[in-house]
Amino acid sequence: MSDEPIDLLTALASFDQLWSPRIVTRVNDYDVRVAKVAGEHVWHTHDHTDEFFLVLDGELRIGLRDGDGERTVVLPRGAVYVVPRGMEHRPSAPGGASILMFEPSGTSSVGDRHDEVPAHVDATTGHALWA
Amino acid sequence: MSDEPIDLLTALASFDQLWSPRIVTRVNDYDVRVAKVAGEHVWHTHDHTDEFFLVLDGELRIGLRDGDGERTVVLPRGAVYVVPRGMEHRPSAPGGASILMFEPSGTSSVGDRHDEVPAHVDATTGHALWA
Repeated sequence: MSDEPIDLLTALASFDQLWSPRIVTRVNDYDVRVAKVAGEHVWHTHDHTDEFFLVLDGELRIGLRDGDGERTVVLPRGAVYVVPRGMEHRPSAPGGASILMFEPSGTSSVGDRHDEVPAHVDATTGHALWA
Repeated sequence: MSDEPIDLLTALASFDQLWSPRIVTRVNDYDVRVAKVAGEHVWHTHDHTDEFFLVLDGELRIGLRDGDGERTVVLPRGAVYVVPRGMEHRPSAPGGASILMFEPSGTSSVGDRHDEVPAHVDATTGHALWA
């Protein structure tokens, strides 16, 4: 972790790739990641962990699917949401968004189970911020 | 956790007490808490966990003390910082601030070791948001 504060806007300005989370800092064995997103991610499921989203800019939608059917939650800027472990989900952002995530280090951006990963989605456990 | 998104400004508007964190949601066995702060907290140390701060509004300062001496990091709005476990620290906000924290559920707001807790500081593991 950095021993100086990190400005999230500066962090976000340091990269352009969409759907490719950067690790801003760590808290014990959790990562704090930021990502720029636009369009649709891929339906996927984290079997062993919840996933926290905070919208820093724009609007994020998260499709949710379980035995009861499918619905979408909408997160404007400043909203938070936790996708519970085991819930199939697909983030999307028709108008683009910047988001912050908390999740255990090593968590894959496409989960433990997922649909075919499209070329615009980076299957990663997160990249170093300034790399 | 809520199955609907939570707007952080609405969450912050639901209480007035300073230095009294509210639990917005949980991620596995971690809490996401928000707090309104102004003036000085108390010097304290978390022996077993790092502590993540994100400034939502205003400016937060965090005094840090270890064997090498004392320094203060300054977090404007939109900045993040992680206080490493074992580091004595004292948050303060001369002009007031709203902050978001990420730490294991059950973590005390005054740590495992602390100076005498002043009356304006709530020694708590976090309160339910809408209680």
